[in-house]
Amino acid sequence: MNHAVFFHAGCPVCVAAEQQVAQALDPSRYEVEVVHLGERSDRVAEAESLGVQSVPALVIDGQPFHINFGAPLSALK
Amino acid sequence: MNHAVFFHAGCPVCVAAEQQVAQALDPSRYEVEVVHLGERSDRVAEAESLGVQSVPALVIDGQPFHINFGAPLSALK
Repeated sequence: MNHAVFFHAGCPVCVAAEQQVAQALDPSRYEVEVVHLGERSDRVAEAESLGVQSVPALVIDGQPFHINFGAPLSALK
Repeated sequence: MNHAVFFHAGCPVCVAAEQQVAQALDPSRYEVEVVHLGERSDRVAEAESLGVQSVPALVIDGQPFHINFGAPLSALK
């Protein structure tokens, strides 16, 4: 099973992206973890280390993909 | 079957996004069409009408999601 992490901050842009993009992934191949960085600021450093610069972002197999533009990570520290 | 369209322009950013994001969608729920706007400038207007502002972009059920930032549509006209 491949690992995907969807980082978001609870904003409307993030929620729309999460519901459509993250939930559209193939559940037989991807285990999707959803992380609300607004509530889990302890994981901002992890997101940064994966290359995430803004949310919402989807990290698939370690590669970050920024979806639209919700908020910069600097706003969540 | 839901319809998803992945618009790209053949750039490295687009290709990486296509291979990982578009191919990660659940094939039992989404029929994914891949459109290379660099070769199909006749479909740029369609992309714009769907709300696409840059490529690569993934349109799921009519809603556009911009993934990272490859090129503005204005460069493809």
